[in-house]
Amino acid sequence: MTPSAPTPAYRRLSVEERRTQLLNAALSLFAHRTPEDVSLDDVAEAAGVSRPLVYRYFPGGKQQLYEAALRSAAEDLQHCFDEPREGPLLPRLGRALDRYLTFVDQHDTGFSALLQGGSVVETSRTTAIVDGVRRAAADHILSHLQVTDPGLRLRMTVRMWITAVEAASLIWLDEDKQPPVEELRDWLVEQFTAVLSVTAARDPQTAALVEKLAADG
Amino acid sequence: MTPSAPTPAYRRLSVEERRTQLLNAALSLFAHRTPEDVSLDDVAEAAGVSRPLVYRYFPGGKQQLYEAALRSAAEDLQHCFDEPREGPLLPRLGRALDRYLTFVDQHDTGFSALLQGGSVVETSRTTAIVDGVRRAAADHILSHLQVTDPGLRLRMTVRMWITAVEAASLIWLDEDKQPPVEELRDWLVEQFTAVLSVTAARDPQTAALVEKLAADG
Repeated sequence: MTPSAPTPAYRRLSVEERRTQLLNAALSLFAHRTPEDVSLDDVAEAAGVSRPLVYRYFPGGKQQLYEAALRSAAEDLQHCFDEPREGPLLPRLGRALDRYLTFVDQHDTGFSALLQGGSVVETSRTTAIVDGVRRAAADHILSHLQVTDPGLRLRMTVRMWITAVEAASLIWLDEDKQPPVEELRDWLVEQFTAVLSVTAARDPQTAALVEKLAADG
Repeated sequence: MTPSAPTPAYRRLSVEERRTQLLNAALSLFAHRTPEDVSLDDVAEAAGVSRPLVYRYFPGGKQQLYEAALRSAAEDLQHCFDEPREGPLLPRLGRALDRYLTFVDQHDTGFSALLQGGSVVETSRTTAIVDGVRRAAADHILSHLQVTDPGLRLRMTVRMWITAVEAASLIWLDEDKQPPVEELRDWLVEQFTAVLSVTAARDPQTAALVEKLAADG
């Protein structure tokens, strides 16, 4: 039997582990404060490291850290849309919305600051990250609806609804998370079918979809 | 009879006239290009003046000129909402939308750049100007509907619809102004009544409004 190696009280982190640790510290701060209210000192303190160490990993400072945190949050957010392609369609949408609203709840201040714009850390890159999430959401919806070649009117309807969901999330945060999240979810699903029905009157592709949804329940 | 004073070929502009002239030149450039693509030299050239003269009136340079132009455009946009308080309600909304969509049509590139965010000239001040227009739009709608104390669900519904209208405008510009503007207008009005009807099922205040709209035609 070989003696086991002594376990050091503080293990030296690998570069990747350290990076993840700093990013998680940044994420937790950016989630609940506006970017303006987060300093590199805060991040260093939250991670229990020195400020120069933060700069060694993120030489671009707060801007770089914010973008990395945003990219990481955007990935998490996109996982909300992962939903098995089975069972009735509207409950699938409801479950994705549940996960999305939980994300909004957990990143309240940062989510508002990000979407309300005008922040010093907002750039064409951060805008592109957010737009990527919006596009992914629209793609997921159309793919669940099994539409492979969506026409203009259907695409517009889906994107308008996604924007309305974003607006609802911001107002919901602003109104101390009222109405209750289950009501908000059901309400948003009902709005989705309502706006699809309006479009159906002027677009055969959407009309076919509305019929499918009605037969799906 | 006294002889009339000779008319000079080039009249010296007053400070206010000169400021307006520069602002109009800036507005016409910012309307059809992204802020990144407008230089102070462009503004000077469009106004037929020297670059130092532009700086004398707008010492803050492009940022100040952009904000002044945006403030001026926001005022114009708010005039779109001026609608006499008479006649059926939905046609009033349709006429306001007609004017709004004309504005969008006339300020296409600048409108997109402004609302898509991530521009170097975007600040908390420009965001506040845009938010002011959104708030004014919501206030106008609620005032036409003669609602003085809108509850949360009604307020959310109106604000979500306004955001959806913005999204529709951006997609419309992106899609070479398709569908035709009259169709887009009617479609948006129909969406308004559809989302109100969804909210009506969970909110007595909105339900009363939907009844009023149905009886109004």
